[in-house]
Amino acid sequence: MPGEFDLIRRRFTRSVTHTDLGVGDDGALFTPRAGMQMVVSTDMLVSGTHFFADVSPELLGWKAAAVNISDMAAMGAEPRWMLLALSLPHVREEWVAAMASGFHGCCAGFGVDWVGGDTTRGPLNLCPTIIGEVPHGRAIVRSGARAGDDIWVSGVPGLAALGLRALRDNLSLANDWRERCISALHKPTPRVALGMGLRGLATAALDVSDGLCGDLMHILERSNVAAVLSDAEWPLQPLIAACGEAQLARQMFLAGGDDYELLFTIPAERRAEVEALSLRLALPLARIGAIEAGAPHITLRLHDGTRQPMSTRGFDHFS
Amino acid sequence: MPGEFDLIRRRFTRSVTHTDLGVGDDGALFTPRAGMQMVVSTDMLVSGTHFFADVSPELLGWKAAAVNISDMAAMGAEPRWMLLALSLPHVREEWVAAMASGFHGCCAGFGVDWVGGDTTRGPLNLCPTIIGEVPHGRAIVRSGARAGDDIWVSGVPGLAALGLRALRDNLSLANDWRERCISALHKPTPRVALGMGLRGLATAALDVSDGLCGDLMHILERSNVAAVLSDAEWPLQPLIAACGEAQLARQMFLAGGDDYELLFTIPAERRAEVEALSLRLALPLARIGAIEAGAPHITLRLHDGTRQPMSTRGFDHFS
Repeated sequence: MPGEFDLIRRRFTRSVTHTDLGVGDDGALFTPRAGMQMVVSTDMLVSGTHFFADVSPELLGWKAAAVNISDMAAMGAEPRWMLLALSLPHVREEWVAAMASGFHGCCAGFGVDWVGGDTTRGPLNLCPTIIGEVPHGRAIVRSGARAGDDIWVSGVPGLAALGLRALRDNLSLANDWRERCISALHKPTPRVALGMGLRGLATAALDVSDGLCGDLMHILERSNVAAVLSDAEWPLQPLIAACGEAQLARQMFLAGGDDYELLFTIPAERRAEVEALSLRLALPLARIGAIEAGAPHITLRLHDGTRQPMSTRGFDHFS
Repeated sequence: MPGEFDLIRRRFTRSVTHTDLGVGDDGALFTPRAGMQMVVSTDMLVSGTHFFADVSPELLGWKAAAVNISDMAAMGAEPRWMLLALSLPHVREEWVAAMASGFHGCCAGFGVDWVGGDTTRGPLNLCPTIIGEVPHGRAIVRSGARAGDDIWVSGVPGLAALGLRALRDNLSLANDWRERCISALHKPTPRVALGMGLRGLATAALDVSDGLCGDLMHILERSNVAAVLSDAEWPLQPLIAACGEAQLARQMFLAGGDDYELLFTIPAERRAEVEALSLRLALPLARIGAIEAGAPHITLRLHDGTRQPMSTRGFDHFS
């Protein structure tokens, strides 16, 4: 379908601001800034696995870009260049135009040039690749967490999982929260400014895509440390306000994915700097636990001081 | 299926030689060499569209890497870093191991570090992204062809298309050619050394993936020139030897895709340099036509000097 694909190529050809050669050749060309390390990541979104086939194409395009940009945020990198490979069962111009508009809108909003990609026929699949830059040696990786660090998370993890349950399982949510939860699911905000602000401050970071505890385990395994979570400062109030159930709110917070908030560790003595960063970005940051020495596992410390182990394998009991 | 995906991650974690941080974090980290431009491209391979579902997984892995590395060759770039996003309907360990082995074998053979990717559940889809480097300003793009350039092609375009017809349509091929044609289809060789040798020599280049004439049109359109092809030096003899039909051989040469040979333009006065490059690389290079002034179109000049227009839209009549 060359004619149809020409149409897509036109929709995908956008102006660029920091790219030497964009869409239309065998590859895109760009020049890294001096002293920078490059950061690259790809996240594939498959119909039926990552999104409903009938989701708004504009929101789908946004989310495909956002989840990839989020990987740059998690490393403290500045997102710079994006590709989009796309497989489509059939070409509907309005759908393609809306998807491209959402994708480009998210890229442009975060200063990212959309520089190329590929389009082909097949089951619906979006596969962006993001490339970013970080000053040499300043990337935040998963392996740097140390005993004595606090564990922090941005925003309110769990809102997107509530949104998913509302759409998929008809979970009833409070009127003024339903749209916010669905928006958290469909239009996540990559925490780019937070990630860049955490350079030199966070010892480890990642973005919460599969669920807070499961993702925390990735930090613990790469850093070879343990974690104790204590619920005194968990941002549960918005979740309880949305769903009306404290227990469900806790489950969504600990195991719900898809919010793309940042989870990060900071030496305890630098707490004031985190609080200042939170104020500067107008973004709530919650201290949800601490790193301890020990083999990778998570312990829950209850209000009364007792400790309770948590499953370390994907927290299947929550799903 | 976290356990299954852990298995895939292990298969996908390979040693790297020029990468700061490989598989296992939110992104991979690498440091460009001084004075280099970065080149990036992605090509998605979908089951049923680009390959038979029952193809050997090792060959599929090789080809997925090769077609992406080929895009670097087409720009005169050195391929350096590769990602692989993969969607799988179910995880069969032997299949994943064989595919990863083929993919890694092709990467390693061309000096490419496999630095990351993504794995998810869904219809079979492989989406690699390749990143390369080229000395600043030395990339070969599609837009530089000028009247007076010769048009050259490497190897024997059309072998892969004969291999496809042998497998799909039971086309009968000569015994000693059948395996070679099928190998051209399943295990193409990216022309990396040729691409790098063409820096400063070729005015335009691309790799032949969709068919020689259709791909030549991309150069003509980007360069705003016309082409005349004359069959005196076309490398048809191997195709005729394989299929026994001169007419089919011509069709396969002009419209068969999937060989990933390089098609490029060179000022006529530099012919001797191309011939020297061919000798140095032990790779046949054939002069198949010339660039002329004019709106983008292709003319065929026959033995007797008469001219005949060729379709400019994807050469659908051949497919």
